[in-house]
Amino acid sequence: MPDLHSARRDSLRQLVRQAGADALLVTNLLNVRYLTGFTGSNAALLLDSGSEARTLFCTDGRYVTQAGAEVPDLEHVIDRDSVAALVKRGSGRTGFESQHVSVEQYEALNALAEGFELTRAPGLVEQLRLIKDEHEIEALRRACAAADAALAGLIERGGIRPGRTEREVARELENLMLDHGASGPSFDSIVAAGANSAIPHHRPADAVLAAGDFLKLDFGATVEGYHSDMTRTLVLGKAADWQRELYELVRRSQAAGSAAVFPGAVSKDVDKAAREVIEQAGHGDEFSHGLGHGVGLEIHEAPSLAKKGDGTLAVGMTVTVEPGVYLAGHGGVRIEDTLVVRDTVPELLTLSSKDLVVV
Amino acid sequence: MPDLHSARRDSLRQLVRQAGADALLVTNLLNVRYLTGFTGSNAALLLDSGSEARTLFCTDGRYVTQAGAEVPDLEHVIDRDSVAALVKRGSGRTGFESQHVSVEQYEALNALAEGFELTRAPGLVEQLRLIKDEHEIEALRRACAAADAALAGLIERGGIRPGRTEREVARELENLMLDHGASGPSFDSIVAAGANSAIPHHRPADAVLAAGDFLKLDFGATVEGYHSDMTRTLVLGKAADWQRELYELVRRSQAAGSAAVFPGAVSKDVDKAAREVIEQAGHGDEFSHGLGHGVGLEIHEAPSLAKKGDGTLAVGMTVTVEPGVYLAGHGGVRIEDTLVVRDTVPELLTLSSKDLVVV
Repeated sequence: MPDLHSARRDSLRQLVRQAGADALLVTNLLNVRYLTGFTGSNAALLLDSGSEARTLFCTDGRYVTQAGAEVPDLEHVIDRDSVAALVKRGSGRTGFESQHVSVEQYEALNALAEGFELTRAPGLVEQLRLIKDEHEIEALRRACAAADAALAGLIERGGIRPGRTEREVARELENLMLDHGASGPSFDSIVAAGANSAIPHHRPADAVLAAGDFLKLDFGATVEGYHSDMTRTLVLGKAADWQRELYELVRRSQAAGSAAVFPGAVSKDVDKAAREVIEQAGHGDEFSHGLGHGVGLEIHEAPSLAKKGDGTLAVGMTVTVEPGVYLAGHGGVRIEDTLVVRDTVPELLTLSSKDLVVV
Repeated sequence: MPDLHSARRDSLRQLVRQAGADALLVTNLLNVRYLTGFTGSNAALLLDSGSEARTLFCTDGRYVTQAGAEVPDLEHVIDRDSVAALVKRGSGRTGFESQHVSVEQYEALNALAEGFELTRAPGLVEQLRLIKDEHEIEALRRACAAADAALAGLIERGGIRPGRTEREVARELENLMLDHGASGPSFDSIVAAGANSAIPHHRPADAVLAAGDFLKLDFGATVEGYHSDMTRTLVLGKAADWQRELYELVRRSQAAGSAAVFPGAVSKDVDKAAREVIEQAGHGDEFSHGLGHGVGLEIHEAPSLAKKGDGTLAVGMTVTVEPGVYLAGHGGVRIEDTLVVRDTVPELLTLSSKDLVVV
């Protein structure tokens, strides 16, 4: 999609000029992908703030063919050390991605910057990436759909049953996501049974599912580089009263958080809307993490929805809303959706039911 | 294994003192894992150059239980921003990992460094990690064994046959590695059929395997965080003469490279030993990458075996030896082993046959 990437580069040129720079050296691979469509493992971009014709893309010899297909609309430099090759071609004030470039790498690059100034320019591409375009949202939608279909398939084929291990469930879930079009899981799946569900970031192990257990599943799919993120908590066999109560509490909190997602909402207020429900029930200390985070080319990106978040939401941001209550040694519930900020109510991308599922 | 990690920290203290520092702030997660055994996603270590008792480990609230189990032998600080929490406790000359810390992060940390000096100290832990101890080699051995078993299983069950897609083969191979004890693949598997085998880093897609094709498989397993790396090239159906000749050429090159792996050998000489075989056959230009790389907690780490490598090998280093010849539009062969540098001949960790396999 050359037009799409060319439009993104044009938007970036404005930001680069606003930052007072004549060019930007883009070294973060995800940012290069966002701006060019290139998916290989070594590349850099030197974006001229005034001219597409003077903008250079660099990768190494392994990727000549792939770069030709994926980035047909820019001049290519082929060099194993793509960043060094491009920095030599800087001019005037050339910005660099100082939140990605290490102190050592900066020293080396600066030594190559002859006749021009290398200047800190953090976060410019990330500023664009905050607001997803419809092409990105479609990729996120497909990633969320793959996760939804995998969970439905897992339940339907009886994949969640006493006697299975957490690891077996994780693996089947991940294979089902591949069946439904994912290129891979978007992070290491969390499958936590029984008391393990009270560990927010439990890794699946040999623990065996038993009747009466909570089963917390936090997982996602990757499609075209975009990540989905969803958590559902189920009960095996029959739900006890305390489980139903805990579940309904978290569900109400999740609904309150989602309802607070609109353009102009301040991050900490969204967090607060969900957190208050849990605090009023006396479980504030057991909701031990932030409410959510942005999601896109990275599984965790801006904006953060947390107690101290000062940013405001805008149309086109994609965020997770994922409150949880964890009763140590007992069990925990987390419910998480991925949402797009829209003009009025948010668009829900993760469509799996949030009714308490008893399998 | 607290003794193991404590011994590694003691070795590091020597390097820190030699670098003229009083403490080292370790922020790279793999380095923290190497020094403490901690496997979570947020942690830092402030190593006092003189005292284990003054050495501090920090992680966040999600990992209190896990950190207690994995790092029982150090004082813990619990803080969401683990790096900032520890830098405040620096003293004298405190080194930081300047090849990992970004320019922006350095500015923020330096502002917190009151009453002491924050000083560049790149590569100290990496220097230790270059030489694997027997515990690490055992993990690498198991990772290589999982890959060997997966390939044998794939062939035995007829998983490589005309009509299958590259993607299907990759997925079965990865599932078989999990069956054989891997926690996951060690990188995105390369499965390249027919003309795709001439693309060094081809990603598996919908290309269909056909009789007469080369099939290049470059893949590995992760066990306890350690990565295996192996490439084998097979032929489907019946090998043509040009395929046998190309295969035997690369095989001779690979044997020559492996034979050049011994303590004191200079990196570029190892590369040369393998490259000469291919150059003498007139295919020098079609061996378009370096001979190999170190492998351990990262899939690519020091030392590099390449044309311009000046480092020397030492007992306990683990390296890959992976020459390849790629005939564009036609087909390519790469053969790769993972080896341990030993006193006399290297120890081979990837044991799959290097005879030309025709399936």
